[in-house]
Amino acid sequence: MFFASDNWAGVHPAIADALSANSNGFSAAYGNGELDKAVAERFNEIFEREVAVFFVATGTAANVLSLAAYNRPGGIVFCHREAHAIEDECGALEYLGSARLQPVDGNLGRIDPGNLERALRRYEPESVHAGRPMAVTVTQSTEAGTVYALDDIQAISALAKAHRLPLHMDGARLANALAALGATPAEMTWRRGVDILSFGGTKNGCWCAEAIVLFDTGLAREMAFLRKRAGQLFSKSRFVAAQFDAYLKDGLWLETANHSNAMAARLAEVLEQSPVSRLAWRPQSNEVFAIIRTGAAGKLKAAGAAFYDWQKPQGFDGNIAEDEALYRFVTSFATKPQDVAQFAAILGSERAA
Amino acid sequence: MFFASDNWAGVHPAIADALSANSNGFSAAYGNGELDKAVAERFNEIFEREVAVFFVATGTAANVLSLAAYNRPGGIVFCHREAHAIEDECGALEYLGSARLQPVDGNLGRIDPGNLERALRRYEPESVHAGRPMAVTVTQSTEAGTVYALDDIQAISALAKAHRLPLHMDGARLANALAALGATPAEMTWRRGVDILSFGGTKNGCWCAEAIVLFDTGLAREMAFLRKRAGQLFSKSRFVAAQFDAYLKDGLWLETANHSNAMAARLAEVLEQSPVSRLAWRPQSNEVFAIIRTGAAGKLKAAGAAFYDWQKPQGFDGNIAEDEALYRFVTSFATKPQDVAQFAAILGSERAA
Amino acid sequence: MFFASDNWAGVHPAIADALSANSNGFSAAYGNGELDKAVAERFNEIFEREVAVFFVATGTAANVLSLAAYNRPGGIVFCHREAHAIEDECGALEYLGSARLQPVDGNLGRIDPGNLERALRRYEPESVHAGRPMAVTVTQSTEAGTVYALDDIQAISALAKAHRLPLHMDGARLANALAALGATPAEMTWRRGVDILSFGGTKNGCWCAEAIVLFDTGLAREMAFLRKRAGQLFSKSRFVAAQFDAYLKDGLWLETANHSNAMAARLAEVLEQSPVSRLAWRPQSNEVFAIIRTGAAGKLKAAGAAFYDWQKPQGFDGNIAEDEALYRFVTSFATKPQDVAQFAAILGSERAA
Amino acid sequence: MFFASDNWAGVHPAIADALSANSNGFSAAYGNGELDKAVAERFNEIFEREVAVFFVATGTAANVLSLAAYNRPGGIVFCHREAHAIEDECGALEYLGSARLQPVDGNLGRIDPGNLERALRRYEPESVHAGRPMAVTVTQSTEAGTVYALDDIQAISALAKAHRLPLHMDGARLANALAALGATPAEMTWRRGVDILSFGGTKNGCWCAEAIVLFDTGLAREMAFLRKRAGQLFSKSRFVAAQFDAYLKDGLWLETANHSNAMAARLAEVLEQSPVSRLAWRPQSNEVFAIIRTGAAGKLKAAGAAFYDWQKPQGFDGNIAEDEALYRFVTSFATKPQDVAQFAAILGSERAA
Repeated sequence: MFFASDNWAGVHPAIADALSANSNGFSAAYGNGELDKAVAERFNEIFEREVAVFFVATGTAANVLSLAAYNRPGGIVFCHREAHAIEDECGALEYLGSARLQPVDGNLGRIDPGNLERALRRYEPESVHAGRPMAVTVTQSTEAGTVYALDDIQAISALAKAHRLPLHMDGARLANALAALGATPAEMTWRRGVDILSFGGTKNGCWCAEAIVLFDTGLAREMAFLRKRAGQLFSKSRFVAAQFDAYLKDGLWLETANHSNAMAARLAEVLEQSPVSRLAWRPQSNEVFAIIRTGAAGKLKAAGAAFYDWQKPQGFDGNIAEDEALYRFVTSFATKPQDVAQFAAILGSERAA
Repeated sequence: MFFASDNWAGVHPAIADALSANSNGFSAAYGNGELDKAVAERFNEIFEREVAVFFVATGTAANVLSLAAYNRPGGIVFCHREAHAIEDECGALEYLGSARLQPVDGNLGRIDPGNLERALRRYEPESVHAGRPMAVTVTQSTEAGTVYALDDIQAISALAKAHRLPLHMDGARLANALAALGATPAEMTWRRGVDILSFGGTKNGCWCAEAIVLFDTGLAREMAFLRKRAGQLFSKSRFVAAQFDAYLKDGLWLETANHSNAMAARLAEVLEQSPVSRLAWRPQSNEVFAIIRTGAAGKLKAAGAAFYDWQKPQGFDGNIAEDEALYRFVTSFATKPQDVAQFAAILGSERAA
Repeated sequence: MFFASDNWAGVHPAIADALSANSNGFSAAYGNGELDKAVAERFNEIFEREVAVFFVATGTAANVLSLAAYNRPGGIVFCHREAHAIEDECGALEYLGSARLQPVDGNLGRIDPGNLERALRRYEPESVHAGRPMAVTVTQSTEAGTVYALDDIQAISALAKAHRLPLHMDGARLANALAALGATPAEMTWRRGVDILSFGGTKNGCWCAEAIVLFDTGLAREMAFLRKRAGQLFSKSRFVAAQFDAYLKDGLWLETANHSNAMAARLAEVLEQSPVSRLAWRPQSNEVFAIIRTGAAGKLKAAGAAFYDWQKPQGFDGNIAEDEALYRFVTSFATKPQDVAQFAAILGSERAA
Repeated sequence: MFFASDNWAGVHPAIADALSANSNGFSAAYGNGELDKAVAERFNEIFEREVAVFFVATGTAANVLSLAAYNRPGGIVFCHREAHAIEDECGALEYLGSARLQPVDGNLGRIDPGNLERALRRYEPESVHAGRPMAVTVTQSTEAGTVYALDDIQAISALAKAHRLPLHMDGARLANALAALGATPAEMTWRRGVDILSFGGTKNGCWCAEAIVLFDTGLAREMAFLRKRAGQLFSKSRFVAAQFDAYLKDGLWLETANHSNAMAARLAEVLEQSPVSRLAWRPQSNEVFAIIRTGAAGKLKAAGAAFYDWQKPQGFDGNIAEDEALYRFVTSFATKPQDVAQFAAILGSERAA
């Protein structure tokens, strides 16, 4: 019953096998090997166009270097108020990009286009005092487990374009969003105006497989220097390539995402039906937020369930009684139906007061 | 016959197995899992004292964050003129540490203490105009395949201490140096005055296992923020811990280092005995530098041998004839005796003109 | 009728004379001259204790280097939502300090201690993901022309201390606040817990006289390097020293501040009594914010009055009718009673609709 | 007898008068006043083309922001081994530009084109490991008091162009070089391939008048943000404009430069004719380097002469006896013939041993 985070899981067997299968032999380092090239080609196929792919060590690195590629003195990046980039990256963008993150309001993890437009207009006309917009970033799926509809992405990219800004997508849980929408990678990214993408594989079944995907391949040369200078160029790059190779083969990545989304839906049903818990809002991908009696939550934890207390996000204004609290549950490729069943059994033994 | 670099190899079977064995189950992320803690304890044992260990993605990151931990405005880091930090890290220290690297001369990759002292004295008395010394860094084994003797390290750390500077060791090939000297990790590092260490496992049999080892554990809290802010905190940190666990178990790391050093020695013998090649200088670890007739080198390459042309390092002033060139050969845990034998066979068929 | 900003004025005659008087002769550069030392001593007297003084070129530099002196990886600086540091410094802190500014709410330019405490608590317990508090900064007088009472400063410094954070004061208009409160420099700064101060002279009668004042003189050595490295060490430092020498002599600085505050009070009276204008809130120093019929404002501008349209600040929720707007007026040492009288005459000719 | 540095002098009377004359009245801040615009126009005239001018606080700021305008990840700036940028700016370029300075050898302060070409070629072909060239910078006149001939500048800019690099000129003593060559500003800068210029007025008679001159005006918008973000945008910009206005009027700047060069020539003659001193090399502008018996130097200092001990620069290999040392003398607009005469009288009383 490990619902603390999808990064508590290990690695999918197919990916473990791929790593083992690649243990032997020699290969050019620093991304110049045959497998690196094959994986780059695979990315082209997945996105139905030429892209440039750069492996990096972490989602934070992917986000920050993506934005740094569009760096401007005095630059300001617009993100949701609760985005990972502003809440959980320890000032990496300020450090590595000398840029500022400007929070934008919106319900349940999604930037509201109206708010974004107002935020952007505050910087018009351009003034050296205020600094100037540099990029917009959205997270898909969001930190609240919600998903931007394709039209939502289009609306935000249209605003970004109108202000001549690039749109970055933080896809730490990209596959979960794709699975939720039933959209293709192309539809959910560059066809809706995304310019650069943090493509995460770690949370969805890899050990360590994060990539920056550039839809403007003209930036690839700069990115090569940005990545190396930031200490993010793996020597045995093959170990990431092998993971992505297996991850992307035969749709494994969408299969694992569908699985974790399905586990989340099942967990949501369990939480909805108990008299001691209810959903805080409807989950759309692999994160479930629920209000639970604290007593019941305590028993679940005592029984070995792992999940986190959570802060109320913007756009949630439901009541939480004194004997209740908000919790977050995250499922993954490794979540088993019996984990949910065990959780349901414990919760089911609880009765309304 | 892949002698291009030790990072062209894959991963040692024991380490591949460890990764597979850790595929399943759940574990706290960001270095808080049980295996992370066990590995941290293993580092304490190896160094015969309490240390603080931080996994990072690359040797560049390990070097730069180590030095950034001792950051001072206007800070200058003294390194050998041909050190990786200055030659091969794309300005990472300037970017991530806002510091300058000051090259110091010395023969075959080793800082000469006399030159270091002269370099340090140029900054005395302290002046805001010149900037000020911040750290000294040595590479062990060096970029020229040589090794600092224990007394050499002591001499340099004494100089650093006399100027109240920390001493960093870039141990991208630490195990090869330990094997060459037959020294213990404690003897070659903190007992000789090393304050902070880049501990590399990647080149010696891991996929991706680099760590910063702090002998001053009081800096650990700062390092935690430095690492995270630089996008170097792995979520599934277990994948590095598992590698180090296998790497350090039962002396595997020294075994692989001894093997690659032995393969280098055998290769050196081959190169020494051929009428068309000779050693440029005597190898001490797993890198061999040889002067070969370009015709013979071409035949070797045509036959599939991989090795690099190399620039004359400081301290080498042997003659290289017009029909000769300097080449570098690197062996690794994966180098097989038959690779060397095959190489010898091809070279042996060459005759002096 | 130049009420656009106090930095539109020139220089006070006494300061101009001091510059002329120092034109000749030779003096050690980089702050080592006799006049520099005399002025440093003058600062000690004014603050009734030993301080360390560093001249810099601009208020932005003073603010950013003050905060950079307390730099920590992942550091977050808490400022009022409308502070100059966040609104008007083009990301200088992100660039020069790699830090983030966290806006705190409060009425009319003043940080509300309750909001500050909530903002600080969000970073407890310490987490590498979130980053960590590094400093608190207040502006005295504020961007809304208000002034923190001495107890307000004490309350904020107590909070900062409780979280082991330094308190910085942006004193671009320090003299106006001192004049408004009738407080001594010591009372309004270190005796109320201020640790470091941006001491501005430019807006109050100098050409270019900004200083960082350190109450913790132990930081002076670091500041010397921080300043030089940022390109902020004047060679002919004497030209700033001469300005400060005249500025601080015989209380000139408080005299000019009293004058500009008095001019603001007179202007406020004029705006209050007209049927076409009213005060938005009561001014406390040398900035007046008023709501004026746009027609009348247009006539004033046409007649040569210079003043800016302004955004509603936090804590002002008065109504502004469709035919009205909010404007800012700033007085200075150079504002003459006849400027205000001329303004009053034009405004007086306007009648309520 | 103040020969320590030209920045020990005060300000030329005409410039002092200009500041006084501009004391009164109001003017738009931040470089938007009428005088700022008039001075910008004056720069256009002087350079016989449209340029963009940005006032900054110091020569260090001018140099660093000039180079930062051409910033590239992993960028390397090539300068003379003894350039101010590398010897006397406390790592400002590493800090503000995240770039590295690569020293290039050459005699008496001047980059040798052959050495520059070799230094540039080391970075070919481009590699992310090594970093990449970003700019070349020359100092005119140099730190050794020598001057690049117009053809020298052309040769270096041709090399820079061949490698698609911009050429920056550090003109802290620009006027002295112009006076020495009898060249026009256009001839010595953009007509010889200089792309961006640090234009110094401080050392040659101003209090604080440094400017960045962009010959590629397309970079002006970026520079506006770079300057503001670095805390280098003066509010009362008029105080710099007034200095430049007087400095550039009726050729005052060349007159003061000619005067200080003439004083240096006279001083050189004195040093050449004494039996206890000799010129280390022939001065070309306003710096004189001489080898003097230490006993005589001590007597001169005791009599009030101020001048500095100096390190042997590259390209000087004259003998210095045990009882001799190398000294630097700098003249300025404020040096009087009687200062030199007094110096000569004291030196003249010395006799050869």
